[in-house]
Amino acid sequence: MVRNSLGRWIPETFNGKALIPYRDPFALQPQGMRASRPLTRVNPGASKVLGSLREAIEASGLRDGMCISTHHSLRNGDVLLGQLVREIDALGIRGITIASSSIHPVHAELIPYIEKGVVAGFECGVNGPIGEQISRGLLKCPVVVRTHGGRARALVAGQVPVDVAFIAAPACDEYGNLSGSSGPAACGSLGYAQVDAEHARVVVAVTDNLQPYPVTPVSIPQTLVDYVVCVPTLGDPKKIVSTTTRITTDPVGLQIAQYAARVIEVSGLLRAGFSFQTGSGGISLAVANHVRTLMRHNKIKGSFGCGGITGYFVDMLEEGLFQTLFDVQCFDLKAVESIGRNLNHVEISADMYANPFNAGAVVNRLDAVILGATEIDTRFNVNVNTESNGYLLHNTGGHSDTAAGAKLAIIVAPTMRGRLPIIRDELTTITTPGDTVDVVVTERGIAVNERHADLKRELLRCNLPVKDIGQIQEEITQITGQPRPLEFTDEVVGLIEYRDGSIIDVVRRVAD
Amino acid sequence: MVRNSLGRWIPETFNGKALIPYRDPFALQPQGMRASRPLTRVNPGASKVLGSLREAIEASGLRDGMCISTHHSLRNGDVLLGQLVREIDALGIRGITIASSSIHPVHAELIPYIEKGVVAGFECGVNGPIGEQISRGLLKCPVVVRTHGGRARALVAGQVPVDVAFIAAPACDEYGNLSGSSGPAACGSLGYAQVDAEHARVVVAVTDNLQPYPVTPVSIPQTLVDYVVCVPTLGDPKKIVSTTTRITTDPVGLQIAQYAARVIEVSGLLRAGFSFQTGSGGISLAVANHVRTLMRHNKIKGSFGCGGITGYFVDMLEEGLFQTLFDVQCFDLKAVESIGRNLNHVEISADMYANPFNAGAVVNRLDAVILGATEIDTRFNVNVNTESNGYLLHNTGGHSDTAAGAKLAIIVAPTMRGRLPIIRDELTTITTPGDTVDVVVTERGIAVNERHADLKRELLRCNLPVKDIGQIQEEITQITGQPRPLEFTDEVVGLIEYRDGSIIDVVRRVAD
Repeated sequence: MVRNSLGRWIPETFNGKALIPYRDPFALQPQGMRASRPLTRVNPGASKVLGSLREAIEASGLRDGMCISTHHSLRNGDVLLGQLVREIDALGIRGITIASSSIHPVHAELIPYIEKGVVAGFECGVNGPIGEQISRGLLKCPVVVRTHGGRARALVAGQVPVDVAFIAAPACDEYGNLSGSSGPAACGSLGYAQVDAEHARVVVAVTDNLQPYPVTPVSIPQTLVDYVVCVPTLGDPKKIVSTTTRITTDPVGLQIAQYAARVIEVSGLLRAGFSFQTGSGGISLAVANHVRTLMRHNKIKGSFGCGGITGYFVDMLEEGLFQTLFDVQCFDLKAVESIGRNLNHVEISADMYANPFNAGAVVNRLDAVILGATEIDTRFNVNVNTESNGYLLHNTGGHSDTAAGAKLAIIVAPTMRGRLPIIRDELTTITTPGDTVDVVVTERGIAVNERHADLKRELLRCNLPVKDIGQIQEEITQITGQPRPLEFTDEVVGLIEYRDGSIIDVVRRVAD
Repeated sequence: MVRNSLGRWIPETFNGKALIPYRDPFALQPQGMRASRPLTRVNPGASKVLGSLREAIEASGLRDGMCISTHHSLRNGDVLLGQLVREIDALGIRGITIASSSIHPVHAELIPYIEKGVVAGFECGVNGPIGEQISRGLLKCPVVVRTHGGRARALVAGQVPVDVAFIAAPACDEYGNLSGSSGPAACGSLGYAQVDAEHARVVVAVTDNLQPYPVTPVSIPQTLVDYVVCVPTLGDPKKIVSTTTRITTDPVGLQIAQYAARVIEVSGLLRAGFSFQTGSGGISLAVANHVRTLMRHNKIKGSFGCGGITGYFVDMLEEGLFQTLFDVQCFDLKAVESIGRNLNHVEISADMYANPFNAGAVVNRLDAVILGATEIDTRFNVNVNTESNGYLLHNTGGHSDTAAGAKLAIIVAPTMRGRLPIIRDELTTITTPGDTVDVVVTERGIAVNERHADLKRELLRCNLPVKDIGQIQEEITQITGQPRPLEFTDEVVGLIEYRDGSIIDVVRRVAD
């Protein structure tokens, strides 16, 4: 065990692989070449269409111990991964690693196959029951949690060699051109899967919507797709994207959003060329609403909005408040509808979105990002992976990527959740280093990272409730009391990998 | 020396590299992995903008004996390659190989630098004076002529490792997103350069039109661009693309076009989903005009047009006769204007267009293609590289690629040029194998490759002037007489590489 620069104990190896302890956000330099795929040849007249998922698994050469991937653009509506694992089991294949872009609660259906040894590990973060059971020691299954940019890096750098990528294709032609913007399982951007298509040994497009050649717009081109398979359905459209995402109506949330918007305004970043990311949560959207009003009022034309895109950002694009949307994932149906018809709504890969090991990702160009937290410490480190019960319940998403990239990374969070204080002495898990977090906004005040003395002064000048983060913590714990420390065993059940591949923290098994 | 399957003598090595003699169009299987680029890291706040082309050459690490590339989308209006070579010379660097996507007559300005040893060879075909001087033995400079798909393959397979790609960018932002569709040197598709951006060791974007971030539509993304350099001009817009391309008015050409259109009609391919490529020559456009009329009349909705795209194909797209245009290169200003605004006018890379070593190029999906020739033999082999004076004057373009891919590859050519017969016993050079050529259409009759007995029968049934190719040859030579055979020395000055990397022919020095 060694301590990384944030004081977390990191084992020397995990699941047989040597680990690099996290040191700082920007120093680790990549070595070697971008990973690539085998050359192949498909002559005129050859068909790529196979009869079933099982035939595709056989044709792909999948064997015991190999690694597969899917994308999570269908989110909790995805049925492909479950189908795949059942077929893999039926073929008698064991010890498969799953390196999907994310795992959702729907994938709790994999639990019996983990127990049976069909699935041997996850080279990706997990949302929901699988993570919970692993943290409780009920399932033996190593997990490596990665950011969206870190996952792209892991594939691009060859750290995680995917043997077969099974890409859910909402629209696909028989030659493998595939698009996310139409069909019963339309999910818009296929930005995560684009990375798999470029780096997996074999690529299988799986569709419930085979269309005449050529399918456009082309999210992933025919040149990268080895096989095409039709299935009855890719998923439940109602769960693929929510039809609406709404601004919070909670007074605490509204107060936080108002403060956060003022921080952006006072920062001086809200000028021509402003770039911005928010999530789809109610507070984030409320911040976006304030920012939109300010941009309108001050006639500010921004450069781009990015990240998971909501209809809210589509409206801002169409209103002329942004020149471009960079979209790695559509968060609602309005975004899905827009990406297929608006040339300024640009589909980008997770590599372009957030990979730290390329010639510069989009997150590097962000002015401001609004992010959430399950816990924050007084050094501005943030946890989004585990809840305060110690269970691994959430994937990192673009959290650490955008925090590292943006000039102004703002964490918005109510000071209490279920009577637990959000600001802690020690985090259950460190997801995002405080070195990349600039401001924490709560309903009780605004804490500014000490690196930003100018911003702090300016906020004070504007009569905003700037407080020391320790002071906010103290105010809360006077109400909540000191939370009872969690007890963990020594057993490391998962890793929290920073975007550069170093280990920022581990997940330990929760003691009974 | 060994004879390839077409009877051409091929040396065992050329310029120090072992050669594979051509055998057949489809059998050669690729080995190994797709080539890749070094991993890199660009942190937030870092700038990619350099002050001059010279600084960029220095920053790229270019040294004696390395390989550079440019694209030819600016065609005879390009001034970048000339500027580059002058700067390389000024820096004292020698022995550079040029692996551009094509060389044009404007690049005759390189001749003094070839003589001086700055430029040591061309890993690409050459149009115009350089090829002529090399074939006459006036310049010592090995040339490897490749098809568009073959060049993509050579880069993708790592056969030609490009050290530094200098990409002329008609619009570019400071982070290296670049677009071909706007700016004073707008040329539309950057399909050739996309391959370089993915495979060169270092990528430099060179622009005369730096725009605010982000430039869209993104032809090549920021993630692949290491440096950005501004220059006063990329080229002469009047020569970048011709403003109009016209249907021939020559009666011989019109007769040929009419026959060719009838061949397509009779072939049965002109049905829903029809796909088509023509060049921009007067006869080709006349064929397109006939086909358009037939499609309108029979209410046929085609799937795609591809290749170098003309305004003529844009009209057909907008009229609904094609669903999609796949565009690797814009041939006129109307195409340039269209590609920037029409989602169904799709920019594709040369890899997607025609590389034989991927999971299936667009040419594989072509129904019919109209191609030219400088010479044809009675086995349907075609020459487009050398003229009948023996000089290497033309690059192959997509000729062999589309012939191999299309179900119906039609050569259109007048029987005589300057009193020389177009059908020969023996070609000066074989560019495209007869095994991939289906029909030869001349004003004196239509010759059908013996593989297509059904088509021949059907054409005869429709009272079209089908003749044996030998018979057409005889008719012509009765007028022209037998052409005087050319005399060559034994010296091999260039290779004609087939699209799969095997050598279909060589270019020998013309005897004085």
